[in-house]
Amino acid sequence: MARPMRNRAEPDEVRAAILEVAEEHFRRIGYQKTSVADIAAALKMSPANVYRFFPAKSAIVGAICSRVTAETQALGFAIAASGGTVAERLTRYLVEIHRHNKATLMNDERLHDMVSAAMEENWTAIKAHIEVMRGIVSGLIREGIETGEFAEGDPDLLGHVVKTSFAAFVHPKLIEQCCDQDMEPIARKLVDILVNGLKKRD
Amino acid sequence: MARPMRNRAEPDEVRAAILEVAEEHFRRIGYQKTSVADIAAALKMSPANVYRFFPAKSAIVGAICSRVTAETQALGFAIAASGGTVAERLTRYLVEIHRHNKATLMNDERLHDMVSAAMEENWTAIKAHIEVMRGIVSGLIREGIETGEFAEGDPDLLGHVVKTSFAAFVHPKLIEQCCDQDMEPIARKLVDILVNGLKKRD
Repeated sequence: MARPMRNRAEPDEVRAAILEVAEEHFRRIGYQKTSVADIAAALKMSPANVYRFFPAKSAIVGAICSRVTAETQALGFAIAASGGTVAERLTRYLVEIHRHNKATLMNDERLHDMVSAAMEENWTAIKAHIEVMRGIVSGLIREGIETGEFAEGDPDLLGHVVKTSFAAFVHPKLIEQCCDQDMEPIARKLVDILVNGLKKRD
Repeated sequence: MARPMRNRAEPDEVRAAILEVAEEHFRRIGYQKTSVADIAAALKMSPANVYRFFPAKSAIVGAICSRVTAETQALGFAIAASGGTVAERLTRYLVEIHRHNKATLMNDERLHDMVSAAMEENWTAIKAHIEVMRGIVSGLIREGIETGEFAEGDPDLLGHVVKTSFAAFVHPKLIEQCCDQDMEPIARKLVDILVNGLKKRD
């Protein structure tokens, strides 16, 4: 799909156009089979011009993944800000993020390939995403400590621990490997045990 | 390394020889670069003869991985049978299995490739291994329930939940992705929270 750029387009516009065309190519043709030259050709640009905006194909997929992960983050923030006890929101967080990631990845093999490639090649973007999600969990735990629902503790450390224990439910590779199982009852029970473990002892 | 088989060797002997030569090739040359024909040639056999014992290269790597996983299982059983409270043994289980898997995978890139290939191609062997490890965790939790250290509950379900929460510490892919971090304090804190959550409320 050729989408020639006007002369003298604004840098932000060029960046957005590269990302749009790249994502369309990655989804239609696959990440591995698309080259920077293909993306440049579709925009009637030189590859050198694409490289002025993105130093490598991995940087392009990183930017696209940032948009995908931003959706997950928005879901996480919405759940954290929704009503109910911290325990209820932690359960909702784990079950809904699991469901979201599973639905996104399982229904869209090309997207899955793209995310896998990003995880291999552009770990920085994924790491930033994991940090944001950990921040949401830490925030919920901080709230639980402040309201007395949980015992005293370091919310950053506890958030790190709880987020790490969620890996099997949210990590693309593990969702893929467990996709024949219904993980939701396990997720609910895990949050029950963790919440019970974080509570004050009477 | 050619290792011709005697004529009229026992089937078990042939099987063992194929595995030995295959492992030596996988470690020296790499899993992807070794073909069944290479393994057969080193044994002065026809590929058809190798296929009489293993229907595919993935079956060979599966059998080798079963030996690697058997080591991890032996470590798990030894920890479960060692002294101390269930809480102490669960901590030791998670920390030592994490350390073992990290050391095994990080120090031996070829082995890591082999295990990754097995996970992709021979999920049955890995699934059987996960089931054994889950059984060890369930056994510890059953013991905790029986001695009154933990509240009443279904040890199989609870073992499944606890084992699933350990994924980030024991799964090769996740160990690889987190290998720049010291995960041990996180592992210890996770077991603390889980044990606290499994305890009877006074």
